[in-house]
Amino acid sequence: MRKLLLTIEYDGTDFHGWQLQPQGRTVQAALERAVKQTTGEDVRVVGAGRTDAGVHAAGQTAHFETESDLAPGRFVPALNHWLPRDVSALHCCEAPRDFDAQRSAGSKLYRYRILRSTFRRPLRERFALRCWHRLDAAPMARCAALLAGEHDFTSFCSVHSEAAGKTRTLLRSELVEDGDELRYHVEADGFLYNMVRIIVGTLLEVGQGKMTPDEFADVLSARDRRAAGPTAAARGLTLMQVRYREDPRSSHREGHEEERG
Amino acid sequence: MRKLLLTIEYDGTDFHGWQLQPQGRTVQAALERAVKQTTGEDVRVVGAGRTDAGVHAAGQTAHFETESDLAPGRFVPALNHWLPRDVSALHCCEAPRDFDAQRSAGSKLYRYRILRSTFRRPLRERFALRCWHRLDAAPMARCAALLAGEHDFTSFCSVHSEAAGKTRTLLRSELVEDGDELRYHVEADGFLYNMVRIIVGTLLEVGQGKMTPDEFADVLSARDRRAAGPTAAARGLTLMQVRYREDPRSSHREGHEEERG
Repeated sequence: MRKLLLTIEYDGTDFHGWQLQPQGRTVQAALERAVKQTTGEDVRVVGAGRTDAGVHAAGQTAHFETESDLAPGRFVPALNHWLPRDVSALHCCEAPRDFDAQRSAGSKLYRYRILRSTFRRPLRERFALRCWHRLDAAPMARCAALLAGEHDFTSFCSVHSEAAGKTRTLLRSELVEDGDELRYHVEADGFLYNMVRIIVGTLLEVGQGKMTPDEFADVLSARDRRAAGPTAAARGLTLMQVRYREDPRSSHREGHEEERG
Repeated sequence: MRKLLLTIEYDGTDFHGWQLQPQGRTVQAALERAVKQTTGEDVRVVGAGRTDAGVHAAGQTAHFETESDLAPGRFVPALNHWLPRDVSALHCCEAPRDFDAQRSAGSKLYRYRILRSTFRRPLRERFALRCWHRLDAAPMARCAALLAGEHDFTSFCSVHSEAAGKTRTLLRSELVEDGDELRYHVEADGFLYNMVRIIVGTLLEVGQGKMTPDEFADVLSARDRRAAGPTAAARGLTLMQVRYREDPRSSHREGHEEERG
């Protein structure tokens, strides 16, 4: 039995999220179906991050086990042949027997795009939240930076979370202004349910002047979901990258598109 | 009778181009219907560029005449209320009686995005051509630069063009590499039918090594459509901006989103 690691991109707009569901298209179901069509096997595809409905991915990872002896580099075009147009395998490589796409992950990097515009913007709204309120970026950036380091993120976690501990370490928490867009980049050793979207929803309160940076710091220490702002829309969020301390992709380069002649 | 100038953004994917047609959705028809729903008038909306099916716009302009006394700044939300989701009015202002969105235009700026990737890229392919061939950017950039200035562009013009003269002046013709993307920026006093897409199709031949820069120079002097490469797909092309020597938008700032309190 071999273990393979996939890197995947998808437009989350028309998916009911990553995880298998009785109803609705999911990315996991699409991948499991594509593996079945490629190798004939019924496999479980385990993703690093269970992205919600509408959330996108530029670098989701997932592992599965197979008896097939197909080379990793051949899996990518084979899976893409069967996958729907809004999901694509970008890379495939061998992984150690004890590797787990989710549990072995050292950190994940997400990006949230906010587009400041009074009017509809058809070229960008598929992958960004549009905000028609005036937003002051400077206090938002200061509050984003406050979250770096190890904290209890109970305030920024859905009440439906089943996580035992709510302490996570943010390696990066940065709001960057680029023209009419604000982009929030956040990297952590793990994320709680809706965590990035609640952080962004609270930063938007700060940007609109409804909450001061001092009050934002109080939200973090309150450890109470009710202290934070609303959950920002899924469309602005993209899982950019999953990082591993020992990355199977750096030792096994098969199947990467740069390998192609 | 007042004349108004609109600035418009649209995702061209699901439109059969700008111009009115007996069959199929067009941007012009959508705008004329929205004006009718706003003021009750049957108007002709005249666009600066008649973009083809699948071509996008970030800054198309168009004028129309109206008896309505609605302020320009009120037209934008009113039109957007009636317009479909993939087109949006961004700005509206008064224009002089003799102004014509197309004939008064000093220049238009287009951008063509090429994404170098072996595999499908769901997050970017809506607005970029994906190319799975290896592309050498340096000779493409040299050939793009050759086109700057005044030339007879017969070789880069569809045989279905009805333009009398084929000489145009390119104020900018620049291919820029940005990571895995190549972007061709071209500004001219006017464009022939399919001109940007044929230029890009020919630059792609150069990038693949099927045509040398010397041969590219010969294509320009041949004045023969058959000498150039194929017409590149519409999806990569966006009309970025229409420039006017005397821009009504700089004197009448009403309706711009920056005006909003």
